[in-house]
Amino acid sequence: MKEFKVIIMGFGAVGQGVAEAIALKKEMIQKDYGYNLKIVAAADSSTSAICIEGLDENTLVKTKKETGKLADYPEYGSNLSGLQVLDSVDYDCLIESTPTNIDDGEPGKSLTLKAFNQGKDVVTSNKGYLALNFKEIIDAAQENNVNFKYEATVGGSMPIINFVKDTLSSCKIYSVIGILNGTTNYILSRMTSEGSSYQNILRESQELGIAETDPTNDVEGIDAACKTVILANSLLNIPATYDDVEVEGISNITSQAIDLAKKDGYLIKLIAEVLPNNLKVSPRLVKKGSSYDVNGTLNMANVKTDLAGDVSVSGFGAGSLETASAIITDLISILKNKK
Amino acid sequence: MKEFKVIIMGFGAVGQGVAEAIALKKEMIQKDYGYNLKIVAAADSSTSAICIEGLDENTLVKTKKETGKLADYPEYGSNLSGLQVLDSVDYDCLIESTPTNIDDGEPGKSLTLKAFNQGKDVVTSNKGYLALNFKEIIDAAQENNVNFKYEATVGGSMPIINFVKDTLSSCKIYSVIGILNGTTNYILSRMTSEGSSYQNILRESQELGIAETDPTNDVEGIDAACKTVILANSLLNIPATYDDVEVEGISNITSQAIDLAKKDGYLIKLIAEVLPNNLKVSPRLVKKGSSYDVNGTLNMANVKTDLAGDVSVSGFGAGSLETASAIITDLISILKNKK
Repeated sequence: MKEFKVIIMGFGAVGQGVAEAIALKKEMIQKDYGYNLKIVAAADSSTSAICIEGLDENTLVKTKKETGKLADYPEYGSNLSGLQVLDSVDYDCLIESTPTNIDDGEPGKSLTLKAFNQGKDVVTSNKGYLALNFKEIIDAAQENNVNFKYEATVGGSMPIINFVKDTLSSCKIYSVIGILNGTTNYILSRMTSEGSSYQNILRESQELGIAETDPTNDVEGIDAACKTVILANSLLNIPATYDDVEVEGISNITSQAIDLAKKDGYLIKLIAEVLPNNLKVSPRLVKKGSSYDVNGTLNMANVKTDLAGDVSVSGFGAGSLETASAIITDLISILKNKK
Repeated sequence: MKEFKVIIMGFGAVGQGVAEAIALKKEMIQKDYGYNLKIVAAADSSTSAICIEGLDENTLVKTKKETGKLADYPEYGSNLSGLQVLDSVDYDCLIESTPTNIDDGEPGKSLTLKAFNQGKDVVTSNKGYLALNFKEIIDAAQENNVNFKYEATVGGSMPIINFVKDTLSSCKIYSVIGILNGTTNYILSRMTSEGSSYQNILRESQELGIAETDPTNDVEGIDAACKTVILANSLLNIPATYDDVEVEGISNITSQAIDLAKKDGYLIKLIAEVLPNNLKVSPRLVKKGSSYDVNGTLNMANVKTDLAGDVSVSGFGAGSLETASAIITDLISILKNKK
């Protein structure tokens, strides 16, 4: 059987979800696509585990959860990290799930470019460097003649990039308008149903692990703006970067504003708009019962096309296994092309 | 430039939509996929137009609309029809858009099997023979090593088959539940918003061309049941045929029943359920504001998966150009595989 050897860089929620998903799906991938999928290395921010024979997915997750360091992986733990790992073992594809960094895109950017230079495919969930340098990255993938897939950067388990590229390939895309951040949609949904204040719901969301300790990226619209850039480039061919997006978050939304909207049959949602002359993330009124009326951590997108008219999609915007599902789908599409 | 020669069999709303869509999209297909897409024959129920150099898409539509017969196509009109056309000209792909026939699947079935035997790819919008003989048709395509695509059989412009197969390929599919018939959804939506009777709204829908003169296939759930069979086979690997579906239509739904549901926050929708042990089309209560709350001729489907959780999609369930968009997407996916 042919082998497909992956390295997982970044072993937080998404990286661990990928390891778990590979454990669940490797038999199916063998059977349906004829490849033996192996994790030959996984790295957290400062250590790693490396073994050309393949690491055990569940031991990786267990080690990380118990000790916090992949260096503690039995026998194959290593103090190598970052770029060094890519030189330490033969592999076919980098799964890049390091944290999003909107200042300089690192370490994801350097890892991805190095993998390209090594002639390796890359699947990423990392929005940062794509929001900053989309064209540079896509060009580098093409120059090196490798596959680069990034469905997991937008929408969690909601397919949107492959959805438009593969299943609406006959259509010209006029716009994509949607809810691209699960945390803010959760906060706004609960403010609407409970009438509580932004601060109260934010605090509870943090306690539940739905909002991060520093919630800035989500609540100020930064995360949704990164996704807006990625959709603009990939689906509408707009050569935008992060600075081209007009961004306003939800931290100034009061429960009074939500109540007022509610009385007239409206909801307040953090809406991302991708139009040829308008890239914008902002709180907007949407009609109750419309396709934008999705609750909790759901994401949705409404795609306006020439032939197919309006097509909508929705799904869970976050979650470890949910985001991993997008990464495994990207891996499978690479394997399909190899056949 | 490489050529890709298609024959369009069946030149009603869908066939004409395909010709129009090819006229709109052939430049894009040349540019993006490197193929010169040509219609070398088109046939209605008794005549055809045939030319190996390629027919003009707009002249085909104009001829059909003006005289009702493709035999009147200038210079290249012919009295050949049906299977004979497939022997009369060299081609690469049959676009099979003859009417759905749930009794014996003809003429679509024979046309499709003949094309397979000739080693040709087939893209179809015809539900009949798939609802009756899904496995036989898929097996025949495989034996002849040809492509067979059928996105347009379900959901009009709403991607559902390619959506699940391509963009949720990492996931096991537990169920697909949705609204798969635009005409009945239109009738129920208007009964709900206007409080009118089924008979009144049906008559107006017929006048508007949304319901057919003989509305049986739509209102008795037959159309939705065919689609249920196709989704069961293609997405859940259930070897079902039409007789395995429990079917109840909407002709007995009264405005009183709709009003009663409305008072408690519910709507009545014709819901198709595809579950391993349950294939069913029936009027069901759905919550107002839920993902099943789509109006007019919209279709929607909620897909329950293992990794990605629940994912929903919606789009226009009918329309000539909308259905053609699914056919062109299927054509493009065949061209992509050829590259």
